[in-house]
Amino acid sequence: MTNNTSYVKVASHEAVKGNFKRCLLLYSGGLDTSVMLKWIQEEYDCEVIALSIDIGQTSDNLQKIKQKALTLGAKDAIIYDAKDEFANNYLSMAIKANADYQGGYALSTPLGRVIISEVAVKIAKKYNCEVIAHGCTGKGNDQVRFESYITTLNPALKTIAPVREWGMGRQEEIAYAKKHGIPIKQTAELPYSYDENMWGNTGEGGEIENPAKKAKLKDILQWENIVEKAPDTAEYIKITFNKGIPTELNDKKYTLAQIIAKCNKIGSKHGIGVFQLIEDRLVGLKVRGVYEHPGATILINAHKKLEQIVSTREENQFKSIVDTKWAYMIYAAQWYEPTVSHLNTYINDQNNKVSGIVTIKLYKGQAIVVALESPYSLFNHDLATFEKNDAYNQNSAAGFIEIYNMQQQLAYNVLPKK
Amino acid sequence: MTNNTSYVKVASHEAVKGNFKRCLLLYSGGLDTSVMLKWIQEEYDCEVIALSIDIGQTSDNLQKIKQKALTLGAKDAIIYDAKDEFANNYLSMAIKANADYQGGYALSTPLGRVIISEVAVKIAKKYNCEVIAHGCTGKGNDQVRFESYITTLNPALKTIAPVREWGMGRQEEIAYAKKHGIPIKQTAELPYSYDENMWGNTGEGGEIENPAKKAKLKDILQWENIVEKAPDTAEYIKITFNKGIPTELNDKKYTLAQIIAKCNKIGSKHGIGVFQLIEDRLVGLKVRGVYEHPGATILINAHKKLEQIVSTREENQFKSIVDTKWAYMIYAAQWYEPTVSHLNTYINDQNNKVSGIVTIKLYKGQAIVVALESPYSLFNHDLATFEKNDAYNQNSAAGFIEIYNMQQQLAYNVLPKK
Amino acid sequence: MTNNTSYVKVASHEAVKGNFKRCLLLYSGGLDTSVMLKWIQEEYDCEVIALSIDIGQTSDNLQKIKQKALTLGAKDAIIYDAKDEFANNYLSMAIKANADYQGGYALSTPLGRVIISEVAVKIAKKYNCEVIAHGCTGKGNDQVRFESYITTLNPALKTIAPVREWGMGRQEEIAYAKKHGIPIKQTAELPYSYDENMWGNTGEGGEIENPAKKAKLKDILQWENIVEKAPDTAEYIKITFNKGIPTELNDKKYTLAQIIAKCNKIGSKHGIGVFQLIEDRLVGLKVRGVYEHPGATILINAHKKLEQIVSTREENQFKSIVDTKWAYMIYAAQWYEPTVSHLNTYINDQNNKVSGIVTIKLYKGQAIVVALESPYSLFNHDLATFEKNDAYNQNSAAGFIEIYNMQQQLAYNVLPKK
Amino acid sequence: MTNNTSYVKVASHEAVKGNFKRCLLLYSGGLDTSVMLKWIQEEYDCEVIALSIDIGQTSDNLQKIKQKALTLGAKDAIIYDAKDEFANNYLSMAIKANADYQGGYALSTPLGRVIISEVAVKIAKKYNCEVIAHGCTGKGNDQVRFESYITTLNPALKTIAPVREWGMGRQEEIAYAKKHGIPIKQTAELPYSYDENMWGNTGEGGEIENPAKKAKLKDILQWENIVEKAPDTAEYIKITFNKGIPTELNDKKYTLAQIIAKCNKIGSKHGIGVFQLIEDRLVGLKVRGVYEHPGATILINAHKKLEQIVSTREENQFKSIVDTKWAYMIYAAQWYEPTVSHLNTYINDQNNKVSGIVTIKLYKGQAIVVALESPYSLFNHDLATFEKNDAYNQNSAAGFIEIYNMQQQLAYNVLPKK
Repeated sequence: MTNNTSYVKVASHEAVKGNFKRCLLLYSGGLDTSVMLKWIQEEYDCEVIALSIDIGQTSDNLQKIKQKALTLGAKDAIIYDAKDEFANNYLSMAIKANADYQGGYALSTPLGRVIISEVAVKIAKKYNCEVIAHGCTGKGNDQVRFESYITTLNPALKTIAPVREWGMGRQEEIAYAKKHGIPIKQTAELPYSYDENMWGNTGEGGEIENPAKKAKLKDILQWENIVEKAPDTAEYIKITFNKGIPTELNDKKYTLAQIIAKCNKIGSKHGIGVFQLIEDRLVGLKVRGVYEHPGATILINAHKKLEQIVSTREENQFKSIVDTKWAYMIYAAQWYEPTVSHLNTYINDQNNKVSGIVTIKLYKGQAIVVALESPYSLFNHDLATFEKNDAYNQNSAAGFIEIYNMQQQLAYNVLPKK
Repeated sequence: MTNNTSYVKVASHEAVKGNFKRCLLLYSGGLDTSVMLKWIQEEYDCEVIALSIDIGQTSDNLQKIKQKALTLGAKDAIIYDAKDEFANNYLSMAIKANADYQGGYALSTPLGRVIISEVAVKIAKKYNCEVIAHGCTGKGNDQVRFESYITTLNPALKTIAPVREWGMGRQEEIAYAKKHGIPIKQTAELPYSYDENMWGNTGEGGEIENPAKKAKLKDILQWENIVEKAPDTAEYIKITFNKGIPTELNDKKYTLAQIIAKCNKIGSKHGIGVFQLIEDRLVGLKVRGVYEHPGATILINAHKKLEQIVSTREENQFKSIVDTKWAYMIYAAQWYEPTVSHLNTYINDQNNKVSGIVTIKLYKGQAIVVALESPYSLFNHDLATFEKNDAYNQNSAAGFIEIYNMQQQLAYNVLPKK
Repeated sequence: MTNNTSYVKVASHEAVKGNFKRCLLLYSGGLDTSVMLKWIQEEYDCEVIALSIDIGQTSDNLQKIKQKALTLGAKDAIIYDAKDEFANNYLSMAIKANADYQGGYALSTPLGRVIISEVAVKIAKKYNCEVIAHGCTGKGNDQVRFESYITTLNPALKTIAPVREWGMGRQEEIAYAKKHGIPIKQTAELPYSYDENMWGNTGEGGEIENPAKKAKLKDILQWENIVEKAPDTAEYIKITFNKGIPTELNDKKYTLAQIIAKCNKIGSKHGIGVFQLIEDRLVGLKVRGVYEHPGATILINAHKKLEQIVSTREENQFKSIVDTKWAYMIYAAQWYEPTVSHLNTYINDQNNKVSGIVTIKLYKGQAIVVALESPYSLFNHDLATFEKNDAYNQNSAAGFIEIYNMQQQLAYNVLPKK
Repeated sequence: MTNNTSYVKVASHEAVKGNFKRCLLLYSGGLDTSVMLKWIQEEYDCEVIALSIDIGQTSDNLQKIKQKALTLGAKDAIIYDAKDEFANNYLSMAIKANADYQGGYALSTPLGRVIISEVAVKIAKKYNCEVIAHGCTGKGNDQVRFESYITTLNPALKTIAPVREWGMGRQEEIAYAKKHGIPIKQTAELPYSYDENMWGNTGEGGEIENPAKKAKLKDILQWENIVEKAPDTAEYIKITFNKGIPTELNDKKYTLAQIIAKCNKIGSKHGIGVFQLIEDRLVGLKVRGVYEHPGATILINAHKKLEQIVSTREENQFKSIVDTKWAYMIYAAQWYEPTVSHLNTYINDQNNKVSGIVTIKLYKGQAIVVALESPYSLFNHDLATFEKNDAYNQNSAAGFIEIYNMQQQLAYNVLPKK
């Protein structure tokens, strides 16, 4: 059997030492990418430029990260604010598609990987980098997303995935860090790893890895109140949608990025959008994650109900197929696959009428739509009322039933019984 | 325009006065069907046999109902206990199909209509009834379900739908009742109407009809605690599944009907499964309902997560299409359409491995799966762990990515940009 | 049972005598609609305006038809040329959607009904007609299409369906015609009825109604050569597509209507597009039809192959679901259902790249694509060639296989065997 | 960039020299696998057992092949007749699923790879082989199929793919053959390569690789008459189906393998089932193939029409989604993925009623169903006839239309226009 510890390069897009001079590193400031910053310089004998992209992660101090990168020998360190770009071009689609992978995952990480790749390819060009390095392991989705997106957007670019390649474990990394003067947090560390952006925070590792064990939410959660500590009184908010996109919160206009941030804040107070899922990675593994996405839960719940009331039964049925396909494609590193463009046009066309006001009750982990108004509502009080004098012609019903039931009746009486 | 008040018969399956001698009435004991019991005798000059079926509705005293029917002139009054039949033959499929119409409706009424029709057709034969009468209006789904199922199971049977036909409003019904000595409850009535069975309770009418208004849950709910009054402490329960079917609760064996009843009781205490939906009726209208289905929510949540962990990514993706189709078919009065049989075989085949134990946390309206065990789990700790020495061969990743991304990369670079 | 011969009006959209003054009749000049022209005047005591729409039917002399209408008492008789409108707005979508209902029906009649309804509603407004009458029976799809589309486009309009209503059989119609001086063709009539437009000709009736009998094609076919009499030499044609739409035939530019007409002519010579199908009507019946659509077959075959070569595997797979849904919707009188608009945007987005040149061999009933060229072809010779030195990196294959197969392998070895 | 010529092993399932003693080679007797037989002995210093499986390929003389293998040093050479197993367990499903990948490919090779893998794993166990070697290139689907299926059925088995590994071109192979006394056919070779079994014959290579060129069918075809040389007189055959499976040809009972062989013979005379497709390989490439599958075309055409007449509109619509999914899964090396098992149960359940007799006209490349009989036909003459006195109640139509059209009408009039 092949020995995992000695990494072998086989893919055409993997960078080869000596073939390039400058590498762009996707830099978070954490231990892994800090060790990489040094390791790549040593191992590949090249310059490294560090790129840190702001897509709304709350835990990072980007100026400090920049400073740290320069200290560790980065030729340059770039901070890029992509918050509005992320919200307007990607998260708007997630809302319109009621983003839901396998029963509740709002796709925060998969969507973040698209915008990060796009920015990275742009910056790589500007700074003449021939190679982009990322901090992902060899077992996850993110290596697939970064390498696929980067080489799709620019097939001339090569990539480096040091974690896959270097064969260091936790202790070896710490030793390497000490040896190279890389600062290490001395706090007793929890066993979890996170990925965070404005659309959600994902925790993995520790006991989360064992589906038979309860996840220790009070240790894991970084954004959210434990639901038991959420307020004992419900809060009602109003979200205004225009063509599927949230434009106002409680009657005040905001950018989409602002509305998401505000919903994250309100929602996390009420413990909304805490979510556990054993998901199917596209590399064939199952993994359990604990998600925090209060804003996503609030906005998608609201959107879905508004969309339903302005859509027909046929629309609602086929939209669920389209949304499911969309979510599977986005999860699977396929943002630039042409199918996604077609799905987007479908989704946008249906969302042209998704305008109106949604009232949501937030209480103890739940975000429940309690009232809906839309000029395009297909709920017709004159037809639906139980009162006697109305627009609905009951005389048509029996005839409808006779014809509607014809094939079922015929088939049941003609076909062989089991 | 056609005048609604003068009903005209056009469908072949509508009973015609003089052509039959005995009618079976689906009898609930309420005002509507009590008035019908008299009205059919008068209007059609025929004998009426009253049939009351127990499918787990909690509010009915069936012996009293039987007595009332006899008092009102029923030739005979039959009580039929279908609780186990309902649970074992229909609700078991709902659990395996993760029953969900349009975002959370567990299909209690549509499923109840199947078993009621089946029993009614059987009883009609036994008692030589040539006609079956039901109490549904001309605007709803249930007329379609009853008339479709009854004439499918026995095309020789005819039907009567008095509410569609008689043109009486509320006041006229009460006057008719008084005139014929039909007892009327003197309590000030709430404006809601309900349909109930062991799988759920549906409330409609009153302010529920206006989607822009909040539903007054404390007036509407019949089964459930208002979530604000639910216990402040979480409760954990364990459900054991065998081939997709719940067989044990907290390690004790029960029949499915018993497990559902117990989950209804525990769940309603915690306010679980209170659900509002503006759904698309199959007759073209939208209507808002308030649903109470604590047991259904608990069991479907549990089943869905267990099913996911023993299924592959492909299975999980296509199952969501199958389940959506199943729910639309069941809602749409198509239980005997052959497609449902095929969907059922698909669903059963996938459920052969849905065995294991699910731990669920019940708290303030939420039923969250917190732990899962199954001999068929595809979660493989040796593969998924973040630790260094494991079974997963990271060397394969880059090659996978290169080939996996080939068409996306090619398409992106060959095709015209928008 | 209800007696069919005494028709009862129940639907709100059915016109009632005395409530209107002027009716627009969809007039073909044949016996049925000629009898109607008289019958409506008599029965409804109203004026009748005759409308004949040219959508490429080859058998009609529209000027003679106009004259006949006036002779039979029409207040006015209108000829409307909708050929280009039909081709550009409707048939273009049929090509892009590879129109195929249940295995080969190109949807000529269902598409024709849309444009006819649209024109009729426009003319009804212009001529102050409150009612539109059509010549369809009570058992077919076309009554559903006309009445649905007309009342959708203008809910104030009412409809008359004389054939459904009048209870006349063939002999009674002929008697009525003789009595009212309506000319009757004296030729011994074949038992078939037809519906024709530029997209196809449909024959029904006679022995076609019995699926166990061979259809007598030499009696039935009106457009096509019997395949046995088709030329013994193949003919090759070239069709140029731009964004999914045929724009040139053998390197000469034409309008779409012209290309269709030319393909009908060339194709019918070779017996192409003769097609038999037992289709499912939307009113629950099965019916067998014999179709002649040489142009549709040629253009759809060509389009489908071109679309495939410029699309990815994912696109090709999901497009087949979208196309199937589209065909079922169009067949089912749902052109204005919003889902169709969304499907159309999807289909148009994918077709943005369906440009190129297709060579087709026509021979003895078959239209086979034999060569394809497109600037957007995803066929990449450097990758696909069997030669040794090429762009494809074979080293990636084994790694791809290992990861690609992971869930199948795991599932097979973990799950219970049947 | 990685150098293709020096192959690097990365996958866990690739055999490593020294770790095993005996290899089972899938042996066809051709140049490639004959060279392999020697090369594996030399390169891996191991024993080789040759396995040749008969799944109905017409061109092989298996006894001669066996002899050749022994001559070249095989430790043992095994001939295995899998014809009935192949037909009964795999091709029966292909018929029931109307096997069609991307518009006409009946999946002969993908299905053949399943049975070959299954037999190979069984034989490997019997003969204590730790490794299985196959003759596929590194660019095709078949390496994925063999390695996936083999390691799924027995994860302990390793594989060797010499063509991927050895880096020899055509000339080097011939030189190697000469050096090792491997007989080489001296005939001027055509540039095509083939894969053949009883379900079809696939040709690739030469000018077929260029989609802009017409394929030279008279050079390529091995089974079929050129359509121009097919008989000038049509031939009619009758096929009897029982539960979806052909059981009789022209009223005589045969095994399925016999019926397929006979249909291949009759069909190839008429040039039926010659098919060109630019298909999407699962490794991301497009490739053009020329297929000959006369029997598959006849049997699938017949099955599809029979299935349609015994199925409802709903069944026919969803079956097309199921069949499309099935074909994509089988093509994609997923036979043992559990989804396929579920799809099979669906397909089998629908096929329980696909019994009856189908008459097919064979003429000049076309196999057209011209008559159908089934006890389960849903074609109901009494309902469908155009005659006046029949079972269909036309009075129900208008009521049906009013309710059926409600959402379309409402949506069209409420929603914003584009």
